[in-house]
Amino acid sequence: MRTTLKDIAAYTGVSIASVSLILNNKPHRLSNDTCEKVFKAAEELHYRPNVLAKGLITNRTLTIGLILPDITNAYFATIAKQIQIQLQEADYNLFLCNTNDYPEKELSYVNSLLDRGVDGIILATATGSSAAKCQQIMLKASRPLIFLDRTSPGVAAHSICPDHELGGYIATKHLIELGHRRIGCITGPMSLQSSKERFFGYIRALQEAGISFNPEFIQEADFRILSDYSKLETLLQKNVTAIFAHNDLIAYGVYQQAVQHGFVIPKDFSLVGCDDLPFSQLMAVPLTTVVQPIKELSEGVVRLMLELLSDYKEKKIQTIKYAPQLVVRSSTAEYHN
Amino acid sequence: MRTTLKDIAAYTGVSIASVSLILNNKPHRLSNDTCEKVFKAAEELHYRPNVLAKGLITNRTLTIGLILPDITNAYFATIAKQIQIQLQEADYNLFLCNTNDYPEKELSYVNSLLDRGVDGIILATATGSSAAKCQQIMLKASRPLIFLDRTSPGVAAHSICPDHELGGYIATKHLIELGHRRIGCITGPMSLQSSKERFFGYIRALQEAGISFNPEFIQEADFRILSDYSKLETLLQKNVTAIFAHNDLIAYGVYQQAVQHGFVIPKDFSLVGCDDLPFSQLMAVPLTTVVQPIKELSEGVVRLMLELLSDYKEKKIQTIKYAPQLVVRSSTAEYHN
Repeated sequence: MRTTLKDIAAYTGVSIASVSLILNNKPHRLSNDTCEKVFKAAEELHYRPNVLAKGLITNRTLTIGLILPDITNAYFATIAKQIQIQLQEADYNLFLCNTNDYPEKELSYVNSLLDRGVDGIILATATGSSAAKCQQIMLKASRPLIFLDRTSPGVAAHSICPDHELGGYIATKHLIELGHRRIGCITGPMSLQSSKERFFGYIRALQEAGISFNPEFIQEADFRILSDYSKLETLLQKNVTAIFAHNDLIAYGVYQQAVQHGFVIPKDFSLVGCDDLPFSQLMAVPLTTVVQPIKELSEGVVRLMLELLSDYKEKKIQTIKYAPQLVVRSSTAEYHN
Repeated sequence: MRTTLKDIAAYTGVSIASVSLILNNKPHRLSNDTCEKVFKAAEELHYRPNVLAKGLITNRTLTIGLILPDITNAYFATIAKQIQIQLQEADYNLFLCNTNDYPEKELSYVNSLLDRGVDGIILATATGSSAAKCQQIMLKASRPLIFLDRTSPGVAAHSICPDHELGGYIATKHLIELGHRRIGCITGPMSLQSSKERFFGYIRALQEAGISFNPEFIQEADFRILSDYSKLETLLQKNVTAIFAHNDLIAYGVYQQAVQHGFVIPKDFSLVGCDDLPFSQLMAVPLTTVVQPIKELSEGVVRLMLELLSDYKEKKIQTIKYAPQLVVRSSTAEYHN
């Protein structure tokens, strides 16, 4: 059973009232000897202040919840790790929740984290998210919520994201500069704002170069390793000479399918990904990809969270975007006939 | 602010006592209409039972904590995802904590999770773990603790692990069966029981084949992508013809270093990993590796946790091991002169 102040009082022979003053850092006139005796007993008996009870009074638990759609996606795992390191420096603990891309789970975690008294929540929404509901619940609870990586249009909330539109633009522009004009695009789920924006960036780059948009060059996938050859096959039948995959996982699948069907990258077609996962530089044909500003995202979201926690009411809605960058490796090459 | 029973009473015109009976599922003689009115109001006003307060009384929160050393290691991320899926079926939520391989963080998370009233904790210990202390704290709190993947000798606690010794054995035996006799071994941190056991399996396979152990063939690394060429260089200078890397991340690094220094796998040396991360089959030379029993581990640890939660006191210490299997791909080949 949990050690109580009473146990420590009994163990040390000091009164409960005095034990309470000492362990709760309240002013007192007790001797150093007594204090030392109490602290030693607290340690020996594994005394822990009752945060459940304390949380009811102080309304603070120094804990932040982070809800992610897929912890096995190295992009999110790396962000989670960085956020944890950042929060640790501010003496906060991080509780991670994985929704497995189910919006209902998202809602259930927001409630569950609130029930356990987290001070704030960082949420990377699932596909078909319940973002608006989550925001409503957090407003009601007067706890800060920050959307990470993915915003939801129409939901006025704090958000920290990579500039996905810019990511789509620089990936496509790179292919155009290499002379490609028939550029396929394998998107993430189009219900996600991040996919939409990458797609808008793709269109902007085409327009700037005077290349007309061809809907036959677009395939929608999810943000996992592409396992279905038909999407790639369809694009190759349309004679695309380059493909922009909306994330590295999709690109890995494209690469694998290409190898299995006898295509050579970048000879047969160029391939650009997005995210720069650790494996992308280890591939047989190292992947040209968009490097996400993970350090900026992690630092930015923690900084904003700490600001909101110190002054929740005063803060105007912050929507911050960080610019990604292109890293050119071997999976893209000049267009040839 | 949080909606209280009082708010619902005011909103519906039903007495607080009646609202409490209805929302807490207590027996009552109130009409269906009244019940419906109260439930509707509870939903509209986003009423949530106060778990912090309730947890003080019922001592149950339907939450399990999972503490991992490195969430960016796909092995742990996949286990976390599977455990979450399993727990979800039993209506439990999972809170994930990442220690970044710091034992102090491990202890801090155990305390923090307990403070927030988790029902039990699953712990994959950090290198140089504080396993004994964690176990002591959990015993004191009468909450089940299960060690996952990594045990700590001398700590009598429930544990669910892959059979690491067997993993090391089958990896090495495969290389021996291909005719290799000069087999290098790049271990994980030898302070971890999992590394030690894989190493013991390596030695068992050598002994069975009558190959004497050569300490010059051993290099210690950590469980991250190997970035230091000197370890591989040292082994190749000793003319090893095959290398058993203690996990796939180490093997990825070996592969990358090999390519950079002009070596061809498996022509110049064979390479076996351990874990079978998703990328291992995507590599230019797909990796022969030990497949961890992730499904069995996840199901096993959740089953044991639910058993312990239903009957904490009666349960004898369980130490369960699941057998890994070898998957042979292209990174290993027959020995040649």
